[in-house]
Amino acid sequence: MDKYISQAVIRRMPRYYRYLGELLESGVERISSGDLSKLMKVTASQIRQDLNNFGGFGQQGYGYNVQYLYEEIGKILGLTQTHNIIIVGAGNLGLAIANYMKFDKLGFKLVALFDVNPELIGQKIRGVEIRPIEELDDFCKNNAVDIAALTLPKADADSVAHQVVKLGVKAIWNFAHVDLDVATEGVVIENVHLSDSLMQLSYNIAKNSIED
Amino acid sequence: MDKYISQAVIRRMPRYYRYLGELLESGVERISSGDLSKLMKVTASQIRQDLNNFGGFGQQGYGYNVQYLYEEIGKILGLTQTHNIIIVGAGNLGLAIANYMKFDKLGFKLVALFDVNPELIGQKIRGVEIRPIEELDDFCKNNAVDIAALTLPKADADSVAHQVVKLGVKAIWNFAHVDLDVATEGVVIENVHLSDSLMQLSYNIAKNSIED
Repeated sequence: MDKYISQAVIRRMPRYYRYLGELLESGVERISSGDLSKLMKVTASQIRQDLNNFGGFGQQGYGYNVQYLYEEIGKILGLTQTHNIIIVGAGNLGLAIANYMKFDKLGFKLVALFDVNPELIGQKIRGVEIRPIEELDDFCKNNAVDIAALTLPKADADSVAHQVVKLGVKAIWNFAHVDLDVATEGVVIENVHLSDSLMQLSYNIAKNSIED
Repeated sequence: MDKYISQAVIRRMPRYYRYLGELLESGVERISSGDLSKLMKVTASQIRQDLNNFGGFGQQGYGYNVQYLYEEIGKILGLTQTHNIIIVGAGNLGLAIANYMKFDKLGFKLVALFDVNPELIGQKIRGVEIRPIEELDDFCKNNAVDIAALTLPKADADSVAHQVVKLGVKAIWNFAHVDLDVATEGVVIENVHLSDSLMQLSYNIAKNSIED
């Protein structure tokens, strides 16, 4: 991929992948951009433009081959390789993520959880052990860890982020309510800021009530 | 607000609110767009443009009054009024959200949780009861519920979404891995699709490794 693809397009790819996966499960073998457009509630021209970024995949008068498109988007999204993931912070949010089975299907393999709470240490979530945070260094040195999900308090997030980056983690999936200061080190950061999302929702409620 | 403001600008507002809140807590009374730019790692011109959408707030040579700007953005985001929120699905993710104290500070008041699991019914989370899903109708009729957070399996999300919309809920905070089909009914939908976020992260790992 030597062509620049905007993050806006990339952000839409997982949604395509999700819909195509559902079509596959329903036994649909091909779909026109028009039908995909109705299903996904985006314009057919948007779909054509988005998919053209990756070389198209569609054939005039035939539509898209669902299986092929699903696999190609999977490749683009890097889902053809397995990613080892650790979760730092085994509170409710960490456990929610650990229990989210879907991740397995997408090639994300949970290899360890870490926490500071002695009561949690040694418990297993889907067969994966919760370890003391003191073992984080050794574990990362002895295991190939690709992704660290940070589901811990804001005050601890930045130091743990720096720690896992030093240990060679390629990406951080950050749930802490803070923008991590490690982006310059060539590490991928993906933020899930729940309260930002809730504020967005609040704005749209206020806007709706003005328009009423 | 009679002017059209793009969702892209709105999406950045919670982040301003977050940074301004932290500045306030640190006792900072005013800040130039240049300093805010360095702190937030966006260009000063972006900041000026964004805030100009709402009338500016800045004064040449003085900078922004942090308290004033914080309050004005809070008003824009609808955070000056209290929103009653229910959580449907009291699994780990539902509990994680219920325990997220920060929401109180932003004016979101948790009034009930609902679940189908008899073992959970009657338990209290931060003083708020988990109720059987059968009580959802009555509860919503007898209490002003503004927002329903859906932290339940994909298969049930759409029917519960339609149910709460009929009951007058203004907004849905959707964590189920599905695009809800209720947007046309004038209800605000805010999605948190965790696996979309993880796929985005996977894409960026793949892209980084190609660039290396």
